[in-house]
Amino acid sequence: MTELERLLAIEEIKRLVARRVRALDARDWETYQACHAPEHVSDFFKDAGDRDAMMAALRAETAGVTSIHHVYSPDIAIRSDEIASGSWTMEDRRYWLQDGDEHWLHGWGFYHETYACRDGAWLITSRRLERTRVEHSPGSKRASST
Amino acid sequence: MTELERLLAIEEIKRLVARRVRALDARDWETYQACHAPEHVSDFFKDAGDRDAMMAALRAETAGVTSIHHVYSPDIAIRSDEIASGSWTMEDRRYWLQDGDEHWLHGWGFYHETYACRDGAWLITSRRLERTRVEHSPGSKRASST
Amino acid sequence: MTELERLLAIEEIKRLVARRVRALDARDWETYQACHAPEHVSDFFKDAGDRDAMMAALRAETAGVTSIHHVYSPDIAIRSDEIASGSWTMEDRRYWLQDGDEHWLHGWGFYHETYACRDGAWLITSRRLERTRVEHSPGSKRASST
Repeated sequence: MTELERLLAIEEIKRLVARRVRALDARDWETYQACHAPEHVSDFFKDAGDRDAMMAALRAETAGVTSIHHVYSPDIAIRSDEIASGSWTMEDRRYWLQDGDEHWLHGWGFYHETYACRDGAWLITSRRLERTRVEHSPGSKRASST
Repeated sequence: MTELERLLAIEEIKRLVARRVRALDARDWETYQACHAPEHVSDFFKDAGDRDAMMAALRAETAGVTSIHHVYSPDIAIRSDEIASGSWTMEDRRYWLQDGDEHWLHGWGFYHETYACRDGAWLITSRRLERTRVEHSPGSKRASST
Repeated sequence: MTELERLLAIEEIKRLVARRVRALDARDWETYQACHAPEHVSDFFKDAGDRDAMMAALRAETAGVTSIHHVYSPDIAIRSDEIASGSWTMEDRRYWLQDGDEHWLHGWGFYHETYACRDGAWLITSRRLERTRVEHSPGSKRASST
């Protein structure tokens, strides 16, 4: 792999992750799913299983919720022409109605991801969320996952 | 256009947008104007007209206001050696005095922009703001645009 | 320096700064120190002196504090194959206990940094924080620096 190819791979992975978080907040599930390899595992949905199980769990968890996900300062390491890993600083917000009142969650942390290149396109193969802090509205009944 | 030229164009456009938001919050109008092509149209100032009309509307709207604009996770597509487009996740805050009290606006959304390369320099040619959510201080009399 | 080498240097500096802020919030002082050249000077610790004095002042300032630092929209200029400068939009949050109550600071601004390449690795040589706005919890006894 040349240095130019490495830079191209890094830029493609940054765009992949940008698409992932925008598709999540726009509830564009087709795009969201296409960002992930079939064997993808997210730690917060790991009991669910692979990508397709994650999609079902995610649709259920985000129903009736407005979400805002931000990702900052990527540190992408290309391990080979088929394998890469990356860390991102993240922040998320969620808003929903509960017993007629708006409730919210506001969280911060780091995403640790792995990526694979398949047929020339990079895909996400795993994601782990390391939390720094989570705040909830008083009386919130939602968990801090996702 | 080679792959190297494409990467160089992407980096230049990222720097252009970074300069744009920093110049906005620093009220450096000369730099701000120079980031845009003369025919630039922003959707929230589209009734005003092109770049110079936008500048006048922007100066009026930001008078007496402290603003903070953040842009995240760019997805830049180079269409040709003269045309590009990009999406960014964004967040903005504004603070101002109203009847002696500090009021504020806090918003989230996506910027959708187009760019053109003129004489070797990339310029912004259009910007559309797609809002995810806007919060206002109680009693705020300001619109959510910009 | 070729255009490819310039792009590689920009990406390395972005990763360096990403590592710096993640190490700060994770209190990984070994990584944090290794991001800076020995002669590094931060304006908010400039009375302390160089890098090693900064480290001591930083450990003291962050004891008992949860911090969250975000950096956005880098504008990196490579001056030569050994010298570079960069501006970032930033946001920081701090939380700590004071007389049994949780207090906080929330700030915004710009980082202005310089970098040097030593033995093939880019290091931070100076950092200046230009503040846009700082908010404190009522009764907070902490300064707005760092």
